[in-house]
Amino acid sequence: MFEQLGLIGCGLMGGSFALALKKAGLVRRVVGYSKSPSTTERARQLGAIDVAAPSALLAVSGADLVLMAVPVSASEATFKAMRHGLSPQALVMDVGSTKVDVVEAARLGLQGRLGNFVPAHPIAGKELAGIDHAEATLFAGRQVVLTPVKATLRSNVQRATQLWSAIGARVVTMRPEDHDSAFAAVSHLPHLLAFAFINGIVAQPQGERYLELAGPGFRDFSRIAASDPTIWRDILLANRMQLLAQAEAFREALQALEAAIGAGDAVVLEAAIDAASRVRGNWRATGTVAPETSLSAP
Amino acid sequence: MFEQLGLIGCGLMGGSFALALKKAGLVRRVVGYSKSPSTTERARQLGAIDVAAPSALLAVSGADLVLMAVPVSASEATFKAMRHGLSPQALVMDVGSTKVDVVEAARLGLQGRLGNFVPAHPIAGKELAGIDHAEATLFAGRQVVLTPVKATLRSNVQRATQLWSAIGARVVTMRPEDHDSAFAAVSHLPHLLAFAFINGIVAQPQGERYLELAGPGFRDFSRIAASDPTIWRDILLANRMQLLAQAEAFREALQALEAAIGAGDAVVLEAAIDAASRVRGNWRATGTVAPETSLSAP
Repeated sequence: MFEQLGLIGCGLMGGSFALALKKAGLVRRVVGYSKSPSTTERARQLGAIDVAAPSALLAVSGADLVLMAVPVSASEATFKAMRHGLSPQALVMDVGSTKVDVVEAARLGLQGRLGNFVPAHPIAGKELAGIDHAEATLFAGRQVVLTPVKATLRSNVQRATQLWSAIGARVVTMRPEDHDSAFAAVSHLPHLLAFAFINGIVAQPQGERYLELAGPGFRDFSRIAASDPTIWRDILLANRMQLLAQAEAFREALQALEAAIGAGDAVVLEAAIDAASRVRGNWRATGTVAPETSLSAP
Repeated sequence: MFEQLGLIGCGLMGGSFALALKKAGLVRRVVGYSKSPSTTERARQLGAIDVAAPSALLAVSGADLVLMAVPVSASEATFKAMRHGLSPQALVMDVGSTKVDVVEAARLGLQGRLGNFVPAHPIAGKELAGIDHAEATLFAGRQVVLTPVKATLRSNVQRATQLWSAIGARVVTMRPEDHDSAFAAVSHLPHLLAFAFINGIVAQPQGERYLELAGPGFRDFSRIAASDPTIWRDILLANRMQLLAQAEAFREALQALEAAIGAGDAVVLEAAIDAASRVRGNWRATGTVAPETSLSAP
C-alpha cells in the first residue's frame, strides 16, 4: 500500500496506472500533473487523480511512489524538474518504450536519486492515446519489463515487481540494451513498417480508393499505423540505431521473398512463407514467459 | 432459391459458402467434391454438403449453381474438369484472391461456357484454413468483389449479386485488372510484409526470445503471417507483377522514413507518421463503400 502516488503525465498510460492502483486499493491518494491543465482536470473528473498539482515538483512532493508517464523525449527535463521534491524513500518509475535513453536521462536528471528509479516498460497500449481512453485493466495480463541498472536499489526493484504483479501484470527483468534490441524488433519495426505501408498506398493516384476495399487482414495489420505521431516520433528516434538494424534485417528477408516471386520459384517461396507461418502460428501473446525471467541470463 | 449447389473444394471458403446458403434457405441440396476424400467426408459430417461426389464433373452435374473454391493455381484444371457437366443455366463462381489469372483460366477451361462464370472474390477469411473453421456467418457484413468480363452474361451478374447480398455480403463490381491492383496494395502486400517481418526476426540469434516479449501491436500486425503457405504462395505468384510494383511503392515510403530517422529529423518524421496515422485513423472496414460501386467508374 502506498500513501501517495505522484503522477507526472495524465494520459492513457499514467491514467490507467492510477486507475489500476485505486481499483486494487494500493494507493491512498493520487496527485497528478500534466503539461496541459485541461488534461489534468479531465483526469480528476474521471477519478484517475484526486488532486491536480501545478508542477512536477509539487506532484512528487510527499509521494512514496512516482510514475513518470511522459513522451520519452521529455524524460530528462522531467527528472530534473522532480529531483528536489523526491523523498529518499520514493519509488520512481517510467513507462517509456525505450530504456537506454531513459536510463541516461535518469543519470543526468536524478543524479543522487538514481537508486530510487526502476525503469519500466509496460507492454500495453492502444492506438488511441489520451486520458479519455484510460482504463484500470490496461495492464492486466500484460508483461512489464523492468530494466534496473547497477545503481538501482534492489529493494526498489522488489517493490516495483510486487506493485505491477498486484495489478495483474507479469514482470520480466532484463538489461536496458537487451530491452531496446528486442523492442526494436517486435514493436518499433512493425510500427515503422505500418506507417510506411499506409504512406506507400496513399502516395498512389488510386490509393484512397484501394483502401475502401480493404478487409480484416488490412485492418489488423495496419492498426498500429494509427498510433500517436508525437509519441512514435520520439520512440523511433530514441531507439534509432537498433531500429535501423532491424529494418535492415527485415529488408533482407523481404528481398529473399521478392526474388522468389520475381523468379516464379514456387518451392522457395512456399518454404519461406511456411517458415513464417509456423513461427507465427505457434506464437502466443504473453503466457509463454514465466514471471521474472531474464533475457540476458545464461 | 437454387436447386443444387455443386461445390468444388470443401475448405474454409467453400464450406462457409455452403453453410451460409443453407442457413438462409437458398439452396435445396449441396453436392461437394474435394481432392481429399477425408475433407469431403468432414464437410458432410459438418452439414456443409449433403452428398459427396467422386469428381468435379459429377459435383456440377445437375447443379444450377457452382462454386469453385480451390487454390487459384488449380483454376484452369478445375474449369476443364467441370466443363462437360455444366448445365447451360448454371451460375459458376470462384472465390479467388486474384482475378486476371482466374479469368484467363476460365477462358481456357470453360471455353463456350465462359458466359456462365462470374468471377468473385469475397473479402473474408481467417488465418485458419480448412473445413473445420468454416462458418455460416463468414461473409456477413463483408464485401464481395465481382469482376465480370465482356462475355459474362448480365443475368448471371445479377443472380450473383442477389445471392451474395442475401447472405449478408456487400457487392462491389470492377474490372479484373483494377481488382488485382487494389488487392496487391491492401491484401497481398501486407501478407508479403508480414511474412518478411517474421522471417527477418527469427533469422537473428536472439530472435525467438524477442518474440516472447511481443505484445498486442505485434499480435495484430503479424496475424496474417500465420496464413496458409500453399494458398498464399499461389496468390503472390498469380499477382506477381502488381505485387512487386506495390512492394516498390512501399520500399520508397520506408526509405523516406528511414532517412528521416537516420538524420534525426523529428519534423519530417513526425509529418510522415502523422500522415499515416490520419489515414488509418479515418479508415473504416467496409461500411464506407456503397453496394455495387465501381472502382473504374468515372
